[in-house]
Amino acid sequence: MPDLSQVTRGRILFGGDYNPEQWPEEVWHEDVRLMKEAGVNSVTLGVFSWAKLEPRPGAREFGWLDRLMDLMHGNGVGVVLATPTSSPPPWMGRLHPETLPRDENGQIEWWGSRQHFSHSSDTYRRYAAAITEDLAARYGGHPALTMWHINNEYCTYDWGDEAAATFRDWLKRRYGTLDALNEAWGTAFWSQGYDGWHEILPPRRAHYMRNPTHVLDFKRFTSDMLLECYVIERDIVRRHTPHLPVTTNFMPMWVGQDAWRWAEEEDVVSVDIYPDPRDPFGAQNGALIQDMTRSQAGGGPWMLMEQAAGPVNWRGVNHPKPRGLNRLWSLQAVARGADAVCYFQWRQSRQGAEKFHSGMVSHAGEQGRTYQEVKQLGAELASIGAEVTGHHIPSDVAVLFDWNSWWAGAQDGRLSSEVDLPQVVRAWHRALWEAHITTAFAHPEHDLSPYRLVVVPQLYLLTDTAIENLLAYVRGGGTLVSGFLTGVADEDDRVRPGGMDARLRDLFGIRTLHEWWPLDAGEHVECAGLPGTFRGTLWSEEIEAADRDEAVPHVYRGGELDGLPAVLRKGRAWYVSTLPEPTALRGLLVRIADDAGVRPVLAGLPDGVEAVRRGEVLFVLNHGRDKVTVDIPGTHRDLLTGATVTGSLSLGRYGAAVLKP
Amino acid sequence: MPDLSQVTRGRILFGGDYNPEQWPEEVWHEDVRLMKEAGVNSVTLGVFSWAKLEPRPGAREFGWLDRLMDLMHGNGVGVVLATPTSSPPPWMGRLHPETLPRDENGQIEWWGSRQHFSHSSDTYRRYAAAITEDLAARYGGHPALTMWHINNEYCTYDWGDEAAATFRDWLKRRYGTLDALNEAWGTAFWSQGYDGWHEILPPRRAHYMRNPTHVLDFKRFTSDMLLECYVIERDIVRRHTPHLPVTTNFMPMWVGQDAWRWAEEEDVVSVDIYPDPRDPFGAQNGALIQDMTRSQAGGGPWMLMEQAAGPVNWRGVNHPKPRGLNRLWSLQAVARGADAVCYFQWRQSRQGAEKFHSGMVSHAGEQGRTYQEVKQLGAELASIGAEVTGHHIPSDVAVLFDWNSWWAGAQDGRLSSEVDLPQVVRAWHRALWEAHITTAFAHPEHDLSPYRLVVVPQLYLLTDTAIENLLAYVRGGGTLVSGFLTGVADEDDRVRPGGMDARLRDLFGIRTLHEWWPLDAGEHVECAGLPGTFRGTLWSEEIEAADRDEAVPHVYRGGELDGLPAVLRKGRAWYVSTLPEPTALRGLLVRIADDAGVRPVLAGLPDGVEAVRRGEVLFVLNHGRDKVTVDIPGTHRDLLTGATVTGSLSLGRYGAAVLKP
Amino acid sequence: MPDLSQVTRGRILFGGDYNPEQWPEEVWHEDVRLMKEAGVNSVTLGVFSWAKLEPRPGAREFGWLDRLMDLMHGNGVGVVLATPTSSPPPWMGRLHPETLPRDENGQIEWWGSRQHFSHSSDTYRRYAAAITEDLAARYGGHPALTMWHINNEYCTYDWGDEAAATFRDWLKRRYGTLDALNEAWGTAFWSQGYDGWHEILPPRRAHYMRNPTHVLDFKRFTSDMLLECYVIERDIVRRHTPHLPVTTNFMPMWVGQDAWRWAEEEDVVSVDIYPDPRDPFGAQNGALIQDMTRSQAGGGPWMLMEQAAGPVNWRGVNHPKPRGLNRLWSLQAVARGADAVCYFQWRQSRQGAEKFHSGMVSHAGEQGRTYQEVKQLGAELASIGAEVTGHHIPSDVAVLFDWNSWWAGAQDGRLSSEVDLPQVVRAWHRALWEAHITTAFAHPEHDLSPYRLVVVPQLYLLTDTAIENLLAYVRGGGTLVSGFLTGVADEDDRVRPGGMDARLRDLFGIRTLHEWWPLDAGEHVECAGLPGTFRGTLWSEEIEAADRDEAVPHVYRGGELDGLPAVLRKGRAWYVSTLPEPTALRGLLVRIADDAGVRPVLAGLPDGVEAVRRGEVLFVLNHGRDKVTVDIPGTHRDLLTGATVTGSLSLGRYGAAVLKP
Repeated sequence: MPDLSQVTRGRILFGGDYNPEQWPEEVWHEDVRLMKEAGVNSVTLGVFSWAKLEPRPGAREFGWLDRLMDLMHGNGVGVVLATPTSSPPPWMGRLHPETLPRDENGQIEWWGSRQHFSHSSDTYRRYAAAITEDLAARYGGHPALTMWHINNEYCTYDWGDEAAATFRDWLKRRYGTLDALNEAWGTAFWSQGYDGWHEILPPRRAHYMRNPTHVLDFKRFTSDMLLECYVIERDIVRRHTPHLPVTTNFMPMWVGQDAWRWAEEEDVVSVDIYPDPRDPFGAQNGALIQDMTRSQAGGGPWMLMEQAAGPVNWRGVNHPKPRGLNRLWSLQAVARGADAVCYFQWRQSRQGAEKFHSGMVSHAGEQGRTYQEVKQLGAELASIGAEVTGHHIPSDVAVLFDWNSWWAGAQDGRLSSEVDLPQVVRAWHRALWEAHITTAFAHPEHDLSPYRLVVVPQLYLLTDTAIENLLAYVRGGGTLVSGFLTGVADEDDRVRPGGMDARLRDLFGIRTLHEWWPLDAGEHVECAGLPGTFRGTLWSEEIEAADRDEAVPHVYRGGELDGLPAVLRKGRAWYVSTLPEPTALRGLLVRIADDAGVRPVLAGLPDGVEAVRRGEVLFVLNHGRDKVTVDIPGTHRDLLTGATVTGSLSLGRYGAAVLKP
Repeated sequence: MPDLSQVTRGRILFGGDYNPEQWPEEVWHEDVRLMKEAGVNSVTLGVFSWAKLEPRPGAREFGWLDRLMDLMHGNGVGVVLATPTSSPPPWMGRLHPETLPRDENGQIEWWGSRQHFSHSSDTYRRYAAAITEDLAARYGGHPALTMWHINNEYCTYDWGDEAAATFRDWLKRRYGTLDALNEAWGTAFWSQGYDGWHEILPPRRAHYMRNPTHVLDFKRFTSDMLLECYVIERDIVRRHTPHLPVTTNFMPMWVGQDAWRWAEEEDVVSVDIYPDPRDPFGAQNGALIQDMTRSQAGGGPWMLMEQAAGPVNWRGVNHPKPRGLNRLWSLQAVARGADAVCYFQWRQSRQGAEKFHSGMVSHAGEQGRTYQEVKQLGAELASIGAEVTGHHIPSDVAVLFDWNSWWAGAQDGRLSSEVDLPQVVRAWHRALWEAHITTAFAHPEHDLSPYRLVVVPQLYLLTDTAIENLLAYVRGGGTLVSGFLTGVADEDDRVRPGGMDARLRDLFGIRTLHEWWPLDAGEHVECAGLPGTFRGTLWSEEIEAADRDEAVPHVYRGGELDGLPAVLRKGRAWYVSTLPEPTALRGLLVRIADDAGVRPVLAGLPDGVEAVRRGEVLFVLNHGRDKVTVDIPGTHRDLLTGATVTGSLSLGRYGAAVLKP
Repeated sequence: MPDLSQVTRGRILFGGDYNPEQWPEEVWHEDVRLMKEAGVNSVTLGVFSWAKLEPRPGAREFGWLDRLMDLMHGNGVGVVLATPTSSPPPWMGRLHPETLPRDENGQIEWWGSRQHFSHSSDTYRRYAAAITEDLAARYGGHPALTMWHINNEYCTYDWGDEAAATFRDWLKRRYGTLDALNEAWGTAFWSQGYDGWHEILPPRRAHYMRNPTHVLDFKRFTSDMLLECYVIERDIVRRHTPHLPVTTNFMPMWVGQDAWRWAEEEDVVSVDIYPDPRDPFGAQNGALIQDMTRSQAGGGPWMLMEQAAGPVNWRGVNHPKPRGLNRLWSLQAVARGADAVCYFQWRQSRQGAEKFHSGMVSHAGEQGRTYQEVKQLGAELASIGAEVTGHHIPSDVAVLFDWNSWWAGAQDGRLSSEVDLPQVVRAWHRALWEAHITTAFAHPEHDLSPYRLVVVPQLYLLTDTAIENLLAYVRGGGTLVSGFLTGVADEDDRVRPGGMDARLRDLFGIRTLHEWWPLDAGEHVECAGLPGTFRGTLWSEEIEAADRDEAVPHVYRGGELDGLPAVLRKGRAWYVSTLPEPTALRGLLVRIADDAGVRPVLAGLPDGVEAVRRGEVLFVLNHGRDKVTVDIPGTHRDLLTGATVTGSLSLGRYGAAVLKP
């Protein structure tokens, strides 16, 4: 199987989306000069070029792209070639309005922006296949070509009539019979029983809450239909170039794609990461996506397909990256497994909807700080590439995450709209990140035996297979910590008897889960125990423990739940029925991890300093603005500077060291 | 006329919505066991069973319901049988899309939830009549059947084309001629004059504010069309079972139905009450709906059709009921006239949109706290039923409320969007509730002579008949207190000359109402007078009193209105031109009530304790979490415990006593 | 050319919209009596009379209007006759649904309100022309007629199919070829290249951000289409009455109309001004619109077409005008060039959507405070009219404002949604207003040589012509101060190389504009310099000055920009890269103005006192509620009181003096 290593060959890929059709050809030569000065070795071409390649149905205009491919090749820049199918040309919507998606209100998403295609449209798919076929045929043998990039940030929905038809087909495949569907959806409630497949629609706008399993299946269907679009194009390019890897770029922890399933269909897993430079947890959020993407890549190297050299333009207020931050976050990605550091986009647009999104070459041009920092980074990446590419990141801890559970848990008629799964996952990952415990992510049905500790921030929906997997993991000696709202529903979003699966209740020592007590925004509960009292937020539970002799590490103090268990422990299985405040959650996890034999990468690090080991190499990153001194046992060479580091290391603001023993 | 007493026969009905089609039949037998243990004597069947009963057009599947009716009868549980017409089966929308409502933007409300029917659809009405006919024919003679429940929570709107046609018919009946309509709507303004009936549409989405009388009539029409749907079905079941009472369940103070008119068409008035367990005014809000429903029932017993044993699932954060609260609020309903204490629903769903809405049997099952408390309550209700059912609640005070006034007052182009009639009514009712003055509600055209005191929180729109009714009431010796924004508009929402009806101005001693001075959110005005100064919120007025010798109990102090009257009094007629802060409003009303000979149920009650007399029986309810001691003159027997109470009573958290002299 | 002076003839026009079709004819006579008592000399008739004049297609009912015209004439009240085309009768939408606008989601704006016409509908335009023709023919010679008022507050958009066709025509005229359009819109980005004109639609709802130049052109097109509607009707009435002036009323600083272009097509520029009486900057906001309208009128007199005598009814909470405020703000308008002080509307409606919008005669009627104050004002305006009408207001300062720049700057994908051009303009105007420097407004391509100082709060988009105009102005000795985000984009919203036009960078002494640093809401930056430190909000910039020897009056202190220039100065050109806090901005502008030889109208005024000179007459207005004493050099006669003022003047709350030397 082709993979990223054949593209990197010991170098970290450095470059970005390149949309030269926005510029006169004389600028292309300026681009090449600046790319070479910056050490750019890879660009992605053609992401939004459909109208340029096929200005009217069936037409083909390849000349400009031929010249670009040759230009890149002639200058030693590899090309990741994109299929242009994420933005159909205007003629498609006009000639084939059925290719335009409709939202749940029946409103059309017109052309004039991007991603105005229905994943279910046969017409769209045919046109997309045809242009993909012709691109692959023409450039499959071009020496500049290193990889295929299918479409871009798949992220659309469609509630229209053609999607209704493919939804019914998908449901037939899933359920076989209408009886099975009616049973799975619980249509006996509210008189929703279907008597014919043709009665089923996407979950369109309705008077009141829609059937949650209907909505859940529509989310599954949407992810699957987009994946079908991807696979069709992937199979075409693969037929032409079986030796070249194929990818499509994820958005970070995007709700619309079950990335576990998608990653299985990719040769290279790639992702776009855009933390807000102002976010005090930006570095941790970046680390989380990096950990998740690496795990989707099977632990192997992955590709940072897009980041911003400066500001983005889609937030309310879009802040630039302060001096040094672009470098720091790029090195963090490498530390956590990226073998490609790329940007959207090479040269900042002067026109169009993203002209205020930064580029590697900003409006300020060559003299601008942005390009100057890019150039420095390019040199640094070149200096460390050989020592880090291809190397893996060891991890004894897995955090479990599942899209199905997210989708089901986010239903309308839930107990608390304050509970947002990504926020809960971030809170648990943050506790581990701040403790310098490098973490993998896993699906609840994955083999968990490689891990000493498995953390479940929240898995509202768990299949029977997943539950058995968790039980077997603990039986096998693993340590499991679970947050609240886990194991509530089965695969069809049917609440399990008792409000939580009986096997899990037994695992954690819960006799009766009397009531869930969600907390208001800003509300907290006190939890008392050893080593001290903490505050819980978001949630609490009225639980009767199975056995008074079991350990109840923390109980609620005060309020309606006074004296009832807040944290339960039965052997190596822990259940945390609230969201502890950050220091308490970190303390709890450190203690459990330590008992499970899990150690931090480095001990005694100053606040804001991150340490990650990749292969033999130790990355030390200072996310703070103050100078810090870090104790580093032994002697290392800093690959960035060539300096020898013995015993301790001094890092300035946003400073980084890449240390080889 | 059939009524509730024939169903209760000295027992308080206890039970709830029962949707057994969600469960395999073996669960039904478990249900029956638990019902009997809990003293359940009434269930409502069939509310959402249409698709089960008529899985395709014209089909009938009654077997499962036959078995259920027999099962209930065999176990001594009476059945309130519902027509299933609030949620048509999926086939109806598919075969007859014209039955689907459209919102004001023209968007369809699709099936997949519930209540996706147009009140104006002839097709819908025909199908609804047919299934009702067949249900009534089949079960009219079943011994389990005690009452009919038509549809469920009528609450839909329709701006579509078929509704446009029925709206025109309704307008023809109301106005006779287009000239009369043009005159009533004031279409001379903004060039809205209609030249033909066919030009009139529902008040759909428009560029700017719509004609307020057009909108008002559309609200009247909507309430009337829904009532028509109700009456059609009621007449069918009544034809089959003239001896059985018929009801439909109101939502509490729901804006869409003129409940005064609706109640006249019901044999039993029933309502759903869902205060937020976290609402500090939950008990008072419950009392308000109970008082209003009792008054709609002509002062006689009413039915609490739905409440929640624990949390609901449609708020942002849904809190469970703390231990004891379900019992306390159930007893409160009985105290204020309920002869039926029922729930949505018997057994908590495992699937569908309401699976996180509690049931009498929660996910935790028989051992769960919820069911255990339900069982206790069932026993207690059984012990008091004989002494309270059928008895009336004396009241010397009526609060006036009218849907037409609410609808008109809520128009877009009003002076203050901060003024919300329900909040204003709640504020005035709260003052009386906290003073332990049991209050009825009345329509402004009702006979008011039974009352010593009539309170008008706000009646923006008053018909001439209503105004004459108020004048006659005061002339006849009654005491009237009116809040601001009363008597502003006539029946067609035409502002009366002077900004307030001249007869009312004369009644209250107002010469000129120069300007209304609405207050911003958070703003207040100072009002000085005896017995002290208070703060007013929401509203103030620039009034010139008619006569300097008339009493002006309070004047504004400071600001633009300094020295002008805030509260006016002319004999037994009072006008309050702002919303006094709670303690001031209570003080004012207590003083006026006392002058009018109105006394509290009990004097000297601790905070948070409620006392209501029903017939001879005195309910004392502690809404606080601290233990209280209450002085109770004389000797009583507590029907709940059998204990004798002499002189004083001690009540724990959420404690209650039902005292018989 | 006809103009306002032929209507005023030494009198200030006083009156308002008069919609007598709402009232029985007996009220008309009462109206006339009250008008005469109040000194009303002008009313606007027919604004919303289309359905009354043409109750069905082609019908004409003029009798009622004949009687009104005669009645006005007989009582010495001039008539501004409106074409009724802003609110088509219901029959038009019903018979010609294509005349109804659609919003960007495709939803129809139905009749039932007002302004439900598509500017692009040929059918609408034909009907509008016909009724205009007939009105002009019938009343063109009527002695009451003084002026024409076309339509009312043009403010509609249309994304429908007929608008799509006219949009394409407009684009053909603008661009000539598709290549030019593709180039101007930058359609190479996101595959938006158009291959045929028929592929172009209005910028309808899309999946993500739309092309900003597409959106910009749609705004230009909308303004132009509305202007076409205006011109069609204007040309008709002008053909009948070439001697009479024509106007249409602007809304204040309304985003939808390029008022500079529109004003060129009007004989009289008129505007509606509705500051919130509670707005602490209400007086300044009024002054801003007055200054802008006067400038659009070429510096000459203008018409205050609508203001409110009391509250409006379209805010959340609508406050009345405290005693004296209506008079004060009316005199302010006269001070700043208004020769007409008119209201919406004469008599407050009793019905319809605006019945809570005040009138000159309020619901309280003749005895109400509102009318009493109107009557007083009428007398006062009569007493000063001869001395002020026709006179100009001297100004040495121009503030530049341009709709194209506003439209482009407000695009979706901009760097900060906190930056709102009107707020920025208000901040800069406020600084000048508080410094008593009377200010004109100008378009960036206007001749600027009359001004000593030109202020650019923000002009994101500047044409090459405008840039050359600014450069020439400074070369010619003018002083220029520019705020941030100026000169960023060219006419097609193409970002200029370097992020700011190179000529402007050179003008201000900027070598490199590295990055924009927008600030969050509530955030500020410190700026240090002489005479002191100030706080900047909204924005900051990372700028490298061209020359270290150039003056950098203020630098950023602290944060990422520490030490970089905040304010740059190169000779007479100033660049301010943040929004200084109010006192700092005022101080900065006063200093620069003083250097440029610009003096305040009066020095040493107390807070809240405004002084404006119109011709020889000096208006002194106290916007405060406390009594103030103002030094006035020399001896004047107060035209309002006849009193002689020597050396100093005392003004009570909301007091005003109109002083003639």
